[in-house]
Amino acid sequence: MWIQTRIELRPRPRGFHLVTDEIVAGVPDLQSMSVGIATVFMQHTSASLTLNENASPDVRRDFAAWFDRAVPDGADYFSHQLEGPDDMPAHIKASLTGSSLVLPVSRGRLTLGTWQGIYLCEHRNDGGSRSVVVTAVGE
Amino acid sequence: MWIQTRIELRPRPRGFHLVTDEIVAGVPDLQSMSVGIATVFMQHTSASLTLNENASPDVRRDFAAWFDRAVPDGADYFSHQLEGPDDMPAHIKASLTGSSLVLPVSRGRLTLGTWQGIYLCEHRNDGGSRSVVVTAVGE
Amino acid sequence: MWIQTRIELRPRPRGFHLVTDEIVAGVPDLQSMSVGIATVFMQHTSASLTLNENASPDVRRDFAAWFDRAVPDGADYFSHQLEGPDDMPAHIKASLTGSSLVLPVSRGRLTLGTWQGIYLCEHRNDGGSRSVVVTAVGE
Repeated sequence: MWIQTRIELRPRPRGFHLVTDEIVAGVPDLQSMSVGIATVFMQHTSASLTLNENASPDVRRDFAAWFDRAVPDGADYFSHQLEGPDDMPAHIKASLTGSSLVLPVSRGRLTLGTWQGIYLCEHRNDGGSRSVVVTAVGE
Repeated sequence: MWIQTRIELRPRPRGFHLVTDEIVAGVPDLQSMSVGIATVFMQHTSASLTLNENASPDVRRDFAAWFDRAVPDGADYFSHQLEGPDDMPAHIKASLTGSSLVLPVSRGRLTLGTWQGIYLCEHRNDGGSRSVVVTAVGE
Repeated sequence: MWIQTRIELRPRPRGFHLVTDEIVAGVPDLQSMSVGIATVFMQHTSASLTLNENASPDVRRDFAAWFDRAVPDGADYFSHQLEGPDDMPAHIKASLTGSSLVLPVSRGRLTLGTWQGIYLCEHRNDGGSRSVVVTAVGE
């Protein structure tokens, strides 16, 4: 059994955003899969996906605080500055967090831990909507 | 052919730990798979998984040295401090290294390179036991 | 339908290199897969794989600039120095970017976004050729 669908995530401000419910709602057929693997793939190079704590919004704000310090906007050692001071840092942050998630499926559900949620990591100031492709295989 | 099993990794001190043997021992049925893909998934947000050198313990100690400097305990720009100074850094380190591994399977074995081993990355001072889910598909 | 093949990437200088065409050329059978998942796996611990911008070479140079600052060669807190000042940083950079890619397949092609390309991240000064294993499953 194969599932493949594209989900458009609406534009978000720069930062880390919990999108588990949107992803799950986008693949209702997953409910009929007893065992499988689901992949979630970001089709952009300045936004990314990660799993992290689904409870406190503080955690998501602190993610932004750390990443913005670790990869500073407009650093003088960046030569790729044409698209704005947030562009090159966005590419690096995207590769640090990663473009895809690989999630086990069991009894019709993503087998996430209690505290795990899917983060959309929006690294641009004005990134617009973002396309993700969910592909799942199972039985 | 599908394999899905949960493996409980016993509590480890904060740091990077080689767990390849435990993971392999937890999925004996992999030996009957001639070609496939195995995923290893961490169900926590303050511990993670990565592949790296399986030989010198120095490498694992240096991982801790670098990550502890890059994401300092109790940094003043973190607002999420309630669960201790090692909590918010643990979340960030988990997303930098990643929650899952995707490994090729060939002739009944994980097709790791000669020097590759699976690291449990324990980012909390007292993280307790950790659940990972191994899901494999193949023929 | 299963595909599994090893691709040898020729030696590259330290830095970030676009290898999408080589990877795609190495798995011609992917063209007959209507839906699937392809994984690309690096069998080394001092080189890695990531997805990022496939257009401007500036971006790849700036990746090197950032990573070389974030994980400095020969830092005094590294104890693993026997294999040279670029060795331990290479291991850490490899885990920051990751050893595998998971890519959706649709109508015989990798479903990459318009600007996405596959980077070989060569972290050693003299890393030599690098083996990657591509495994794909689909129908």
